[in-house]
Amino acid sequence: MIDSLRVAVIGVGNNTSALVQGLAFYRNTGSLIGIARPEVDGLAVGDVRVVAAFARSDGKVGKDLHEAIFAAPNNFPRVEADLPPAGVTVQRGLFDATGIERIAGALTGAEVVLYSAPSGRPEIALAYAEAALAAGAAFVNTTADPVARDAGLAGRFAAAALPLIGDDLASQFGVSVLHRTLLDLLAARGLTLAGSYQVNLGGTEDFRNLVANPDAKKRSKANALGSDLVGIAPLGYLPHLGSQKIAHLNIEARGWAGSAVSLDVHLKVHDPAGAAGVNIDLVRLAGAAVRSGRGGYLPEAAALLKSPPGTAV
Amino acid sequence: MIDSLRVAVIGVGNNTSALVQGLAFYRNTGSLIGIARPEVDGLAVGDVRVVAAFARSDGKVGKDLHEAIFAAPNNFPRVEADLPPAGVTVQRGLFDATGIERIAGALTGAEVVLYSAPSGRPEIALAYAEAALAAGAAFVNTTADPVARDAGLAGRFAAAALPLIGDDLASQFGVSVLHRTLLDLLAARGLTLAGSYQVNLGGTEDFRNLVANPDAKKRSKANALGSDLVGIAPLGYLPHLGSQKIAHLNIEARGWAGSAVSLDVHLKVHDPAGAAGVNIDLVRLAGAAVRSGRGGYLPEAAALLKSPPGTAV
Amino acid sequence: MIDSLRVAVIGVGNNTSALVQGLAFYRNTGSLIGIARPEVDGLAVGDVRVVAAFARSDGKVGKDLHEAIFAAPNNFPRVEADLPPAGVTVQRGLFDATGIERIAGALTGAEVVLYSAPSGRPEIALAYAEAALAAGAAFVNTTADPVARDAGLAGRFAAAALPLIGDDLASQFGVSVLHRTLLDLLAARGLTLAGSYQVNLGGTEDFRNLVANPDAKKRSKANALGSDLVGIAPLGYLPHLGSQKIAHLNIEARGWAGSAVSLDVHLKVHDPAGAAGVNIDLVRLAGAAVRSGRGGYLPEAAALLKSPPGTAV
Amino acid sequence: MIDSLRVAVIGVGNNTSALVQGLAFYRNTGSLIGIARPEVDGLAVGDVRVVAAFARSDGKVGKDLHEAIFAAPNNFPRVEADLPPAGVTVQRGLFDATGIERIAGALTGAEVVLYSAPSGRPEIALAYAEAALAAGAAFVNTTADPVARDAGLAGRFAAAALPLIGDDLASQFGVSVLHRTLLDLLAARGLTLAGSYQVNLGGTEDFRNLVANPDAKKRSKANALGSDLVGIAPLGYLPHLGSQKIAHLNIEARGWAGSAVSLDVHLKVHDPAGAAGVNIDLVRLAGAAVRSGRGGYLPEAAALLKSPPGTAV
Repeated sequence: MIDSLRVAVIGVGNNTSALVQGLAFYRNTGSLIGIARPEVDGLAVGDVRVVAAFARSDGKVGKDLHEAIFAAPNNFPRVEADLPPAGVTVQRGLFDATGIERIAGALTGAEVVLYSAPSGRPEIALAYAEAALAAGAAFVNTTADPVARDAGLAGRFAAAALPLIGDDLASQFGVSVLHRTLLDLLAARGLTLAGSYQVNLGGTEDFRNLVANPDAKKRSKANALGSDLVGIAPLGYLPHLGSQKIAHLNIEARGWAGSAVSLDVHLKVHDPAGAAGVNIDLVRLAGAAVRSGRGGYLPEAAALLKSPPGTAV
Repeated sequence: MIDSLRVAVIGVGNNTSALVQGLAFYRNTGSLIGIARPEVDGLAVGDVRVVAAFARSDGKVGKDLHEAIFAAPNNFPRVEADLPPAGVTVQRGLFDATGIERIAGALTGAEVVLYSAPSGRPEIALAYAEAALAAGAAFVNTTADPVARDAGLAGRFAAAALPLIGDDLASQFGVSVLHRTLLDLLAARGLTLAGSYQVNLGGTEDFRNLVANPDAKKRSKANALGSDLVGIAPLGYLPHLGSQKIAHLNIEARGWAGSAVSLDVHLKVHDPAGAAGVNIDLVRLAGAAVRSGRGGYLPEAAALLKSPPGTAV
Repeated sequence: MIDSLRVAVIGVGNNTSALVQGLAFYRNTGSLIGIARPEVDGLAVGDVRVVAAFARSDGKVGKDLHEAIFAAPNNFPRVEADLPPAGVTVQRGLFDATGIERIAGALTGAEVVLYSAPSGRPEIALAYAEAALAAGAAFVNTTADPVARDAGLAGRFAAAALPLIGDDLASQFGVSVLHRTLLDLLAARGLTLAGSYQVNLGGTEDFRNLVANPDAKKRSKANALGSDLVGIAPLGYLPHLGSQKIAHLNIEARGWAGSAVSLDVHLKVHDPAGAAGVNIDLVRLAGAAVRSGRGGYLPEAAALLKSPPGTAV
Repeated sequence: MIDSLRVAVIGVGNNTSALVQGLAFYRNTGSLIGIARPEVDGLAVGDVRVVAAFARSDGKVGKDLHEAIFAAPNNFPRVEADLPPAGVTVQRGLFDATGIERIAGALTGAEVVLYSAPSGRPEIALAYAEAALAAGAAFVNTTADPVARDAGLAGRFAAAALPLIGDDLASQFGVSVLHRTLLDLLAARGLTLAGSYQVNLGGTEDFRNLVANPDAKKRSKANALGSDLVGIAPLGYLPHLGSQKIAHLNIEARGWAGSAVSLDVHLKVHDPAGAAGVNIDLVRLAGAAVRSGRGGYLPEAAALLKSPPGTAV
């Protein structure tokens, strides 16, 4: 039997809640529901074990991980009625770039550090990467901050035979991939696009942050779809949606003799579950690589990321 | 400049209305809207010309083709306000397998015979194919009746260096391809299907016939989607929809830790336009082949057909 | 404090499951969620107590009521993880009109008999009504079978100072009321109806029975909406929906200068919950009346019924 | 036969385009489609005649009214293929509060002045009202600017026996009334609201202006629906929608035992048609009143206005 993969999580938000609850769910039920890859390089979902966790808010630090994941503003729902203590106490995370040594010493043997804090503080992301490097662990950056795209840092991870994966997690099933697939299908059948729109609504803290700074997101979505005819409505932060994300897509096209083809799509997902479903693969890719001494960037991770090395910083 | 491709149409229903109106529309406007392939083997859409038409009802026979296409029960909408006479008078079609010679003599030099009558009378379909063979024309069978799948007949067309294309037209953009694409996308992302349904509503005479004999259609759809979890609701014939077809699709899936993913799709198309958009390609494939002396079945047509040779009769 | 209202239930299907689970839910939680009337004539929801239950299938008879409600083909979901035994054992019900005395003797002091078996066996419904009459209990008929509309029977209940309520339960929130409300709203604003449709999908045993005999239901719905322009698609029985009912409504209207107004509605409800939400009121109306000696038909129940006395049998 | 009602329109935007095209459509066709009230105080739709029009942009001034209504940025669609000249030349409107006398002299005998310019310039709205007063015409203010709510002005109109109607046109069929109706229906059936949202998308110049200043509109909508549980997403300006307005509504409620009831609505309307359908009634109310010498505010207009006198300025 394979040894459990030891993972440290940085950030105890919704994505970590979904990941941690899912690990317990799969261990208890033996289910493979919603699992894209039962094994990644020999590592099953059940082989992943969280051994350390770091957060910043008083509502989480000092609590057992299985209690901290339900502290506000987290709102990913409870998966199972009973969740026994994890046996991992959430430790205080970094507020700036100082404290790298403390973190390195507190990783308690983690082989992979999963960085799952909010985007927008690259200096803190880099500090955690330094801590992983110092402790001999792989580093997975799920935020939009440029870490794996930092060529110097990537070189030092490679030299240390440690994997460095990032940046910016792609969702397991997102609105953009659905919109893209439908537009491609219509084009492949010879239909002419007349107009299209996308409305995104959500209720998480992450979503609230996006709404406060929507332009980058909107621009990135419009770019992804690549057409003047595709309108992206402003993001709508609706707290009562909780961790649910809702999208309305419309595509109007023209077929033979200009005949109308109209397609409306209503999608409901839980973003944190979509993140966890990808994080479980990234962590296993990183774990398998660190165990076999493959350092630096892992190209097989690119399909799971929005901004892998080689894309613009 | 290439000579116009001379086509005879058998059946003056909605599909023929859409085809004929579209030919006028594209000629008048020079538009390429909704055209999957501007050229097929050198033949543009504007190169196709209808030179003969056959129907059975008194409301159509003896009328100019551009008048007959609006006779009841046809309900495909008028594309352009003004449509001058076609100069082609609709002739009386066959009521049984006798009269092949009369038809052969009345094809007025057609290079391609497009068979677009209702499904369910294979002996009549075969009689028209014999007429095409006798007159030296290619034959395209858009109905579900087995014609191109008749190996003996296909051999005789091949021997005469005449193309024989069929059977059963696939729509340019149908519900099944959309449903299949979405189910495949979810599976590719690792989501687990929990349940799905498809509701089809329409208002044409074709649709009314399907409703009267729904089992074959329902079974074929369920087979196409290949899962016990996909339910096909009974077809709904709603005359006020006219030639519009409406589908409601739902897909419920489970992601990480069983998290719900819910997808609802509302599709509106005009079936006759979807048929014409494919017929224009089949006719051009057949026309190019007959001109270059390629007889028998044309494998390049398979993607545009539901039951090409090799599938069950 | 008021005495609990003693109720006997005939039929242990989904509607009884929803009613019984809801009684436990409201007692445990003190919640008023989804309750239209906290008190009916002084009776709160928590005052209703089931003291006897009758069913016919071997999978239910002899079991505790809180176990029997989950037996197949019932599929209303479990409301709460833990449901202690009810202390009421399900008794064998009637298979024909004989056995009235046995039932009357087994009602164990019930003040109200709630008849919640499948529609279509009026002689059995009448037999239970006789048993209630014999035992001095009020009778509530939730099926479409004519019981309260039987003038002779109503007279005998009135003479005995026993209430007789029925027939045919209206849902707390159904598709017809929603469709009707929207059509009325459009008409009130001066819009002209161009066409409308309604699609109903469900997965219960009740729904399967309706699908097997759809015409009556379809006719009744079309009548309810009163227009040739409103099409009712065939009912779709989709087992994977469980007790969920799904409706798709569309309304196309025309406003100023014929301008299009288009309205699409997607409704998801659980039919058994919609039934229980009305049954709780009928039972309390009947209970208050029987306690105050008001017999015969209760006009205040009419709004909760589809076919009260005075409508066609 | 009644004399035609002489109307002057201020502003030649989409709403005026819809009104003017509709007047021609109803005159040509004799249709009553989409007409809430065939007669208002004896005045039929066909009795209304536009005798003067004022605009500010060079693209409209000096043109025949039937040409000017199609000038950019107007994008209400063409109702009929052929629209002969109106015989009314668009005159230059006001840019500030000077020029009242010129306008009064150019109303060419109008009995009613319909003020249909963009909101946000109250001093100009008031100047046109003064011009109407000076010329002895009724005044209808369809903008949100306080005109009819100006008590001094209303008194002067009353003293002159001239009607003054306003402010802020309600749409013939809007999102708010639909949302309100559905929430009321659920409440009436005893369901408990769990959460709701409303998304509004549009492509007109009016909509672009609202997006630039969304807070007032959003606040007014939230107030109209009166609940913290109802979220209003930011308005989405999507130019390719043209004059079409699209709304997505969702209502999540709970019924018996907390059972979920879910309602999704997709509405498509043309805002300018919704405005014209109400303007035709306001104009006739004002016309009938001016002819019978009833001056000042007309209470029967209140149901067609968002901010009649008595509501906050």
